[in-house]
Amino acid sequence: MNTRNTYRRKVANDLSHHRQAPVGMAQPGVGRIMAEGSPLARAARHDAAGVRNEASAPHPACTTLPLRPCRHPLADRRANAELARFEENIKGRFEAIVPVLRKLANLQHEEDFVARAQAYARKSLGYELPQTLLENAWLRGLDMQTAYAHCVFGALRASIEQCTEGLRAQEEEAIDTKNFILDCGFHCVDITSCSDGRLKGLSKYILRLPLTALTARNAYAGGLFNVEANVRRWESVELSRFRSGEPVTADAGTHYLKVVVYHHSSSDPSHQGCAAHGSNDRVAAEAGLARLHEFREAIENSFCCGASIDILLIGVDTDTDAIRIHVPDGNGDLNVFRYIDNAKIYQDTLNLGADEARIGVYEAVRKISDTAGGWSAGAGQPHEGMRRLIVNLLINNLSQIEYVSDMYGGRYPDIGHAERYISVGDGFREVQVRNLAYYAHLHTVEEGAADLDIGIKIFTGLNVTKGLPVPVAIHYRYDSKVPGSRQRMLEKCRRVKAAIENRYADLVGQKLLICQMSLQDRVLGSEIEIVNEDSA
Amino acid sequence: MNTRNTYRRKVANDLSHHRQAPVGMAQPGVGRIMAEGSPLARAARHDAAGVRNEASAPHPACTTLPLRPCRHPLADRRANAELARFEENIKGRFEAIVPVLRKLANLQHEEDFVARAQAYARKSLGYELPQTLLENAWLRGLDMQTAYAHCVFGALRASIEQCTEGLRAQEEEAIDTKNFILDCGFHCVDITSCSDGRLKGLSKYILRLPLTALTARNAYAGGLFNVEANVRRWESVELSRFRSGEPVTADAGTHYLKVVVYHHSSSDPSHQGCAAHGSNDRVAAEAGLARLHEFREAIENSFCCGASIDILLIGVDTDTDAIRIHVPDGNGDLNVFRYIDNAKIYQDTLNLGADEARIGVYEAVRKISDTAGGWSAGAGQPHEGMRRLIVNLLINNLSQIEYVSDMYGGRYPDIGHAERYISVGDGFREVQVRNLAYYAHLHTVEEGAADLDIGIKIFTGLNVTKGLPVPVAIHYRYDSKVPGSRQRMLEKCRRVKAAIENRYADLVGQKLLICQMSLQDRVLGSEIEIVNEDSA
Repeated sequence: MNTRNTYRRKVANDLSHHRQAPVGMAQPGVGRIMAEGSPLARAARHDAAGVRNEASAPHPACTTLPLRPCRHPLADRRANAELARFEENIKGRFEAIVPVLRKLANLQHEEDFVARAQAYARKSLGYELPQTLLENAWLRGLDMQTAYAHCVFGALRASIEQCTEGLRAQEEEAIDTKNFILDCGFHCVDITSCSDGRLKGLSKYILRLPLTALTARNAYAGGLFNVEANVRRWESVELSRFRSGEPVTADAGTHYLKVVVYHHSSSDPSHQGCAAHGSNDRVAAEAGLARLHEFREAIENSFCCGASIDILLIGVDTDTDAIRIHVPDGNGDLNVFRYIDNAKIYQDTLNLGADEARIGVYEAVRKISDTAGGWSAGAGQPHEGMRRLIVNLLINNLSQIEYVSDMYGGRYPDIGHAERYISVGDGFREVQVRNLAYYAHLHTVEEGAADLDIGIKIFTGLNVTKGLPVPVAIHYRYDSKVPGSRQRMLEKCRRVKAAIENRYADLVGQKLLICQMSLQDRVLGSEIEIVNEDSA
Repeated sequence: MNTRNTYRRKVANDLSHHRQAPVGMAQPGVGRIMAEGSPLARAARHDAAGVRNEASAPHPACTTLPLRPCRHPLADRRANAELARFEENIKGRFEAIVPVLRKLANLQHEEDFVARAQAYARKSLGYELPQTLLENAWLRGLDMQTAYAHCVFGALRASIEQCTEGLRAQEEEAIDTKNFILDCGFHCVDITSCSDGRLKGLSKYILRLPLTALTARNAYAGGLFNVEANVRRWESVELSRFRSGEPVTADAGTHYLKVVVYHHSSSDPSHQGCAAHGSNDRVAAEAGLARLHEFREAIENSFCCGASIDILLIGVDTDTDAIRIHVPDGNGDLNVFRYIDNAKIYQDTLNLGADEARIGVYEAVRKISDTAGGWSAGAGQPHEGMRRLIVNLLINNLSQIEYVSDMYGGRYPDIGHAERYISVGDGFREVQVRNLAYYAHLHTVEEGAADLDIGIKIFTGLNVTKGLPVPVAIHYRYDSKVPGSRQRMLEKCRRVKAAIENRYADLVGQKLLICQMSLQDRVLGSEIEIVNEDSA
């Protein structure tokens, strides 16, 4: 397994990197604000002392996950340390905002406020505030709503830059993953997850799948993707195989794999699950499976020559990031009752050696197909490539279970919503951190109003009740190979912004909803271009 | 040329069919209302007498088209007679509405009104009015706006049924056309025209191209199609060639042809041209050509292995239906100045024999490529298949020039807007009659608001100022092969209706805008299903 090889090379035997990892952000100031009570600091402490921090005790309802610091033989601790720094950096940028603005509130009537405020912002946040905003503060006080939104978008921009650099550094890993996916017999792994912010770190953290040319990802409320749009995407992928042999020729015998990811909450299953499915994980799984069947049937009915696809259903416990994988049978069929719970695998393999643990995961996959009966019965084993992919995803996720264990004592403190902004449009693929953004993937407010309303409802609780605005980042990607595409996406940004401001006119009137528009070429890692009303 | 062979077989030498063609509609009553002053009646009279009817005198500014009844050797007079009956039938259904409602207004306070009204409606229109509408008339008078909209939609439904039957009868012709298009070296002829109602009869009348599996057609304001959506359509067509060899295999050497049709008015060029281009035909041609270039470039840049397409630009004089075809050069490049004016070809070949006339058309195409210089210079002749297609379209259009000459003295009496309803969504492909509908092809009102506003402005002049409502027919097609597609299109219908009623709430409040929703399977000729708020 190529991707694992890379991980293993990296891990080596030396974990000193983890213990020596710099705490907090590279940016001046933020480290000081964040470092004391930060999870990484806690993790470093409990890593050293071997006892867990009582402050991050798991929810009493949960007993499936470890209550002591664990060292799973297959967990990639070096990757975990890197991810911890990454999460801390990104979240730190956002968490630094309110303390800085509070400080500015205290300073605003002092002499030389503007210069002092800018110096403090530069030092603490890494960017300045709009000059005129500060200059006007003497008259009616500093406009905190505008300042807050400016800072959220500033933190977002800095996060994107950091993530884009990270992407470039991961090129080797991406090539390994691409080869592994092809080895498993797939020419595309197309993942749809729920828009819920708690799945925002799905690829990077939960599944540990780097962004590659073979992996597509999008999000819809409840994971209920648009079948027609997905058929068009499938056509595009298939044409590429036939026309240019990319990523492999059409006769290579590979499959298109469509994955739906639903989610649930083990601590508070009836309140903190998927809102789109009434916090009922069986309903969520059934709805996801039904949509997968619709998609597969659409392909089979619309195209001749035995066109079909492989399907896979994954559930995420958003409290622990442990996944369950619904294992296909020999016919490629899924069942909501036939799944492997990775939290159990983690427990069962925790005290084994690395090779034994790996065999344990393989065995678990084999066993579920052989022994499943009754409601969960299926027709034998999935094909060899699918088995390898499932095993790989389970092993990857063991690292994430350990990550949540190390960082948060096995259970996130924010089991509910704690998003920082609403992402509208194509979203920022690069930025993958749990609970960072509520993501409404939409082309028009007219079609996406329901998703957007849920986001505004969440942020009414998170921000508006405290007097803070809802930051809405409208972002679309254009194709620089298509003449006029950038201009059309610019118009789309403006149209969507106008429609949002029209729908939530009350909030906008009180400066409680503030939009930013941005554009980006669709090539992965391209620069983000912030646009305004006057941009051409 | 296969299609022409069919036409010629049909024409034979006997034109008695034309002279004996029943005037007006087959439906009882309407014939009586329409027959007297109808254009077909006039045409029949002037056909018999050999002199033209002074009432339909052409605009004095126009001298290019015949002032006497003409018999062009290549005009298909039998097809013209059939098309005349068709146009008369369809338009007759709509023109019968106001006289019937006036009559009902007179009757509404008489004894036994409901029964008499229904009997009269059945006899005159072929369908009844809603029973409760009539029963409530005693209280506040007959609700004429609702009655009018009901009748427009009734006429539309009857027209669609008639057109669908016509389509089934034209199957042989469609196969001939498909073979001809393939013979010319094209596996798809994808036509975008302007949304303007005066082009509603483009395929059936102006170009005489039956709907086939190879011909796609859509309409956008100003002919400015969506490049991204068109690239997806292209991908779909190409995949079909590779996967299933439909309509021909990918190695057959055929091309995808994209055509843009713009329009202008020779009688009143600066007012009755294309509103989207300020009634300036050169601007319209340049914009259409620019969009064709963008599309071609998008394909060439995005796909390897020499992907490209053929392009063609056609202008229509909406007063006479005479076309101009911009002839590609040897490299496939177009020029807004290098075109053939079919009105001139009609004049030049009017007094020749059939074979000579046909040679004349071929010569005109050859000559323009050889002699064009200066602004209109190009690099030699287009390829053989393109030449054959252009000659065929020009010859087809000669019949239409003669049709307008016979029916309307060479120039339509309604050179401006005279649409009967606004068609929103996928539109009714089957119904192709000039000035019948203003067509706003849209998926959301948010994106299509500008097109819709133009339509409402046109209908404010046509209907609202007279107190008549704007009938809006919202129609979407689903794919019965795709599970859930019908249900999603039903939701789309409702969403678009709600958005329209929200945007034009003032008109809706006064019953001056009335919507109908309908669905249809995308297979050509499928039944139309009228849906309402309660449909499931």
